[in-house]
Amino acid sequence: MQRAEYPTLVQELIRQLRRMPGVGPRSAERMALWMIQQKDARAGEIAGAITHAVAGIRSCVLCGFFSETDRCAICSDPGRDTESLCVVEQPTDILSLERTAAFRGLYHALGGRLSPLDHVGPENLRIDALVQRVKSERPKEIILALGADVEGEATASYLAEMLASEGIRITRIAQGLPAGVSLENADELTLTRAFTGRTDV
Amino acid sequence: MQRAEYPTLVQELIRQLRRMPGVGPRSAERMALWMIQQKDARAGEIAGAITHAVAGIRSCVLCGFFSETDRCAICSDPGRDTESLCVVEQPTDILSLERTAAFRGLYHALGGRLSPLDHVGPENLRIDALVQRVKSERPKEIILALGADVEGEATASYLAEMLASEGIRITRIAQGLPAGVSLENADELTLTRAFTGRTDV
Repeated sequence: MQRAEYPTLVQELIRQLRRMPGVGPRSAERMALWMIQQKDARAGEIAGAITHAVAGIRSCVLCGFFSETDRCAICSDPGRDTESLCVVEQPTDILSLERTAAFRGLYHALGGRLSPLDHVGPENLRIDALVQRVKSERPKEIILALGADVEGEATASYLAEMLASEGIRITRIAQGLPAGVSLENADELTLTRAFTGRTDV
Repeated sequence: MQRAEYPTLVQELIRQLRRMPGVGPRSAERMALWMIQQKDARAGEIAGAITHAVAGIRSCVLCGFFSETDRCAICSDPGRDTESLCVVEQPTDILSLERTAAFRGLYHALGGRLSPLDHVGPENLRIDALVQRVKSERPKEIILALGADVEGEATASYLAEMLASEGIRITRIAQGLPAGVSLENADELTLTRAFTGRTDV
């Protein structure tokens, strides 16, 4: 006698679901059992949505944001302010900024940041495309909205140097105290940056 | 100008992923973004595993456990003790018991328990099939391994009555203190049941 296990198809489903981020063995098992116990078409619809999204989503040729067409909804929106170009690391960062409604211009996602330790150099990012865009679109301001960590800083410095000769205003998003945080809970580096970046009242 | 959102295909994928148990809006979004950013075939493999499992898994005609064939691995295992039949609520309960390695017999999953409030009566469960099996297989013992809650109790009583005329030994799994729990942490009902169900040392 063998102790029974799930049929192979179920074990394979659990194994596949575990590959997703944030899905551990218990939740993969719960999802798999839920799927095979659905009497309606739900699980099939989930599989279909994955297939369709993976097949139908590409990167916008201009900014790199997710799109179903060559140009994304932002780059094809005539209501956008074409004089401001905001540079971010990842396409997902575009959505984070959109949700703040603080910016009405166009974006450019690099696809990452410079990181020698991970063998990510300028040639691995969409930096050439950025320089070409700047030369042809001639925005009035380039806003560097990169991470406030070592790699983000290094990438921002590199880009500022690359674009300096264009004679365009280059800015960086502010570093300082996060909303709702008191001085006693801020780390030293954050406080230093908040202090250095103080603005007139 | 409109604030940009994810393309429709991504929004639909997030909506579908959220239907799974234990998946909230944040984790659905993280999974969806992970899927569309995979450069290899991973997301497609997940979709394929769902489709294959949903299409390929059926209920064992005898016990109701998950199976890729008419009869599951347990019911077709010649090494099983056919003299004991263990009745459970859900096919998933079979695997919980298998993992304890405490039982070597056959199973019968009812597909639920009696619950008048949820409009689940005897005709909605695989009770007729159980009676037929008992009549034809003539096990020596029927073990009721149902939940220790009101509906589980009611279902056990109903089955005990239905099967009484067969002249077969009918048992129930024990109720009492869970492993590792001290008396001061057990609730009153559990303690009462543990006391009532005391066994000789």
